Amino acid sequence: MADWQIIAGGVTAAKGYQAAGMTAGLKPSGAPDLTLIVSDVPAIAAGVFTKSCVRAACVDFNREVLAKGGQVKAILCNAGQANASTGAEGWQNAVECAALVQQALNTEDGVLVASTGVIGKQLLMDKMRSGIAKIATILAPDAGEDAARSIMTTDTVPKSIALETAIDGQTVRVGGICKGSGMIHPNMATMLGFITCDAGVEPQLWQQMLSSSIDASFNQVTVDGDTSTNDMVLALCNGQSGLLISDRNSAAAQKLQAMLQEVCMSLAKAIARDGEGATCMIEVNVSGASSVEGARQIAKTIVGSSLVKSAVFGNDPNWGRIAAAAGRSGVDFDQNVLNIQLGDFVMMQDGTPQEYDRQAASDYLKTDTVIINVGVGNGNGCGTAWGCDLSYDYVKINAEYTT
Amino acid sequence: MADWQIIAGGVTAAKGYQAAGMTAGLKPSGAPDLTLIVSDVPAIAAGVFTKSCVRAACVDFNREVLAKGGQVKAILCNAGQANASTGAEGWQNAVECAALVQQALNTEDGVLVASTGVIGKQLLMDKMRSGIAKIATILAPDAGEDAARSIMTTDTVPKSIALETAIDGQTVRVGGICKGSGMIHPNMATMLGFITCDAGVEPQLWQQMLSSSIDASFNQVTVDGDTSTNDMVLALCNGQSGLLISDRNSAAAQKLQAMLQEVCMSLAKAIARDGEGATCMIEVNVSGASSVEGARQIAKTIVGSSLVKSAVFGNDPNWGRIAAAAGRSGVDFDQNVLNIQLGDFVMMQDGTPQEYDRQAASDYLKTDTVIINVGVGNGNGCGTAWGCDLSYDYVKINAEYTT
Repeated sequence: MADWQIIAGGVTAAKGYQAAGMTAGLKPSGAPDLTLIVSDVPAIAAGVFTKSCVRAACVDFNREVLAKGGQVKAILCNAGQANASTGAEGWQNAVECAALVQQALNTEDGVLVASTGVIGKQLLMDKMRSGIAKIATILAPDAGEDAARSIMTTDTVPKSIALETAIDGQTVRVGGICKGSGMIHPNMATMLGFITCDAGVEPQLWQQMLSSSIDASFNQVTVDGDTSTNDMVLALCNGQSGLLISDRNSAAAQKLQAMLQEVCMSLAKAIARDGEGATCMIEVNVSGASSVEGARQIAKTIVGSSLVKSAVFGNDPNWGRIAAAAGRSGVDFDQNVLNIQLGDFVMMQDGTPQEYDRQAASDYLKTDTVIINVGVGNGNGCGTAWGCDLSYDYVKINAEYTT
Repeated sequence: MADWQIIAGGVTAAKGYQAAGMTAGLKPSGAPDLTLIVSDVPAIAAGVFTKSCVRAACVDFNREVLAKGGQVKAILCNAGQANASTGAEGWQNAVECAALVQQALNTEDGVLVASTGVIGKQLLMDKMRSGIAKIATILAPDAGEDAARSIMTTDTVPKSIALETAIDGQTVRVGGICKGSGMIHPNMATMLGFITCDAGVEPQLWQQMLSSSIDASFNQVTVDGDTSTNDMVLALCNGQSGLLISDRNSAAAQKLQAMLQEVCMSLAKAIARDGEGATCMIEVNVSGASSVEGARQIAKTIVGSSLVKSAVFGNDPNWGRIAAAAGRSGVDFDQNVLNIQLGDFVMMQDGTPQEYDRQAASDYLKTDTVIINVGVGNGNGCGTAWGCDLSYDYVKINAEYTT
C-alpha cells in the first residue's frame, strides 16, 4: 500500500495552497516569526489540541472555530509569544489576529491561529497588525520551506515533508511542517504541526484520520498527559485533487489514512531527532504486549526516561535502566519474560541478563539512531516511540531560554 | 502537638537498636557498602515498596516476610548491586543473604533485605558472605551515622534524623536514615528508608501509620508511578520504650503518627536537597484544590517538570512553565483563578500576569531553598512536594554512572 513518493514543497506541495513566512519583529533575534498558510478554496479542517487545563488563547479559539463546523481558509502562526496565561487580553488578541487575516484575505471563512514562544507574554499586537497586513501580500505556492522556517523556536532545522500517490486515478498529495524539540518529556514545550492535503474528505472522517495518525506519531514523541499550553496539529483538506472520500472503509480512505500517518510519523521523528541538545534519536519498539495502547505506553516510558536518555548520551549500555523504565510504565507484565535488545545486542532474555560485548555495545550508542527493542510477552500489541538523548546542552538551552 | 525534639543517633536513637556499617567490597570505590540494623528484641515491621512490575529480589522477598506476619530481628542493606533483573539466581542470593544474617545473629526471627546499585548485576556473594559474618560482630548502639553512610550511592551527604517526645508518660523515639537523590523524576533511582521506633504498635496500625506518613513525604519527592525496581521504606517498632499502642484513635497514636510523619518528611526533604547535581531545593505548595490528592499531584508535577527545574537552575523566573506544569498535571482546575507566587513575588493572580521586579526574582532563585506557592481555586485541598533544580551535573552523573 505504501507506494507513495516523497516530493518537494512541504505544506504547499498539495494543490491549491500558498504560504508565506516573514519577520514581523515578534522575536528579539530578528529571525522569521510569522507564518500564513492559505487554501485557494475554503477547506475542511481538523485539529488535535493539548489536553492541559492551562491553555493558550489560540487553542480555545480554534476549538470554537472547528466546533462551528464551517470551512477554513487559512492558518496563522506566530513565534515569540505563546499567548498562554495571558487572561482576557490574550483572548481578545487571538480574536483580533484571526479577524485581521480574514480582512487581509477578504474572506468570511474561518481562520485558525497558533502561537509559540514565551508563556505569560502578551502578543506584540502592533507588530502583529503590520505583519498580517504584509504577509497576506507575499503568499506564494512554493513557500513551504519559508513557512517551515518561520514557525521555528528552539528548533535547529526546519521540518517539512510531502508525499504524493495515485488514488482512484487521481494524483493526491499530503504535505506538512512542524516545530518542536524532543525534550526530556517531549511535549512540555510547544509542538505545532500544520498539514495540507488536496483530497476532499468528509469532515468527521478527516478528523478521525488525523486523530488516529497522531496517536501513532506525534503522541509517541510525548509522554501521556505531558502536553504544553499550546500544542496543536491542524490539518486542512481542500478537494483540489479531484478525489473525494466519504466512505471510511473504502480502499481510497485507507490509502489516504496511511499516507497521512506517514507524514505525521516523519514529522514526529524529525522532532525527536532535533531534540534540544540531542546528539542522537532513540527509537523504542515494544512487542508482545496485550494491547497496542499498552505497548505504546511502555515504549513512551522508556524513551522518556531521563536515566535511559543520560545513559545513551554517555554511551553507556546500562540496559537495567530500560528494564526499570518498562516496569514502572503502569502497564503490567511478567518480568520473567522480559527481553531487551539494544541494536543487535541481546541484553536480557526471559528476565535473565545475557553476556554481551560491552565495548561494542557502547560503540553502538555513538550512532545517530539508537534502536531499543523490548519484548514483554506473547501478546499481539506492538508500539513504537521516539525520543533523544539527554545532554549537557539540554540544560543549557532550558536554563537560559527567557533571560 | 509537635512538642518533640531532635536528638542524635539516627536509626539507633530509639531504645533497643544497634547498627553497623562497613566496607564489604561490593562497590569498586572501596566506600562503605554493607549495613545491618538490629533490634535487641524481635520487632513489629511495616514496609512500603515500589509499584514497578520489574522488581528487585529483595522487594519480593520482604513482601513474603511481612505477609507471614512474624516478627523481624534485622534489616540488611547492601550498595553496589541492586539485585534487580537478576532472574532466579538473584532470588536465591536474596534468600541466602537473609539466612546468613539469621545464622550470624543466631535467630529464627525474620530478616529483611534491601539492595541498591547497578541493575542487572548479581550480588557479589563471596563478599556478601564474608561481609555478613563480619558485620554481625561489630554492631553498636551508637552506629546510626555509620549506617547512614554505608547505604549511600550517589548521595553526597548521609541522611539521618531522630526525634524524641513523651507520650503517656513514656519517652518515645523515632529515628531513621535514608538514601536517594532527587532526580528529574526523583524515584527513578533507588530510594531506601529505614526507620526504627521504640514504641510498641499493633502490626496493622503500624503499617497504616507508615503508609500514611509516606504519602505525605517520600511519595511527594516522587512522581506517581515513577518508582524504581528497589524502592522501599521499612519501619520497625520494638516496644522497648514501654509505650504500647493499639487504638488508632487515641491521642497517643495520633502523636506517634505525627512524629513518624515528621521523620519521614525530614528524610524526604534531605533527598530532595541532595538531588543529583542539585544546587537548591524546591518546595511547591499547592492550595485551593478540591482534594489533598489533587493538590499533591499538581505540586509533584510542578516540582518534577524539567523545564521548571532548568529555569530555577538558570535563575530565570519563568513562571509560565509553572503554569504549564500545573495545567498538564491531570488535575482539572479553572485557569482563570490560577495564582502563582515565587517566594514573595506574585507572578500570576486570577489567571492574569502581574508586574514584578524581574532582577529581584532572579536573585531569589539563587537561594538554596526556593518556595513556589500555587493557588488553584477555593477548595480545601492542600499539598506539598519537594524537588531540586536540574543542572549540568545531573547529566554528568547519570551519563557516567556505570561506565
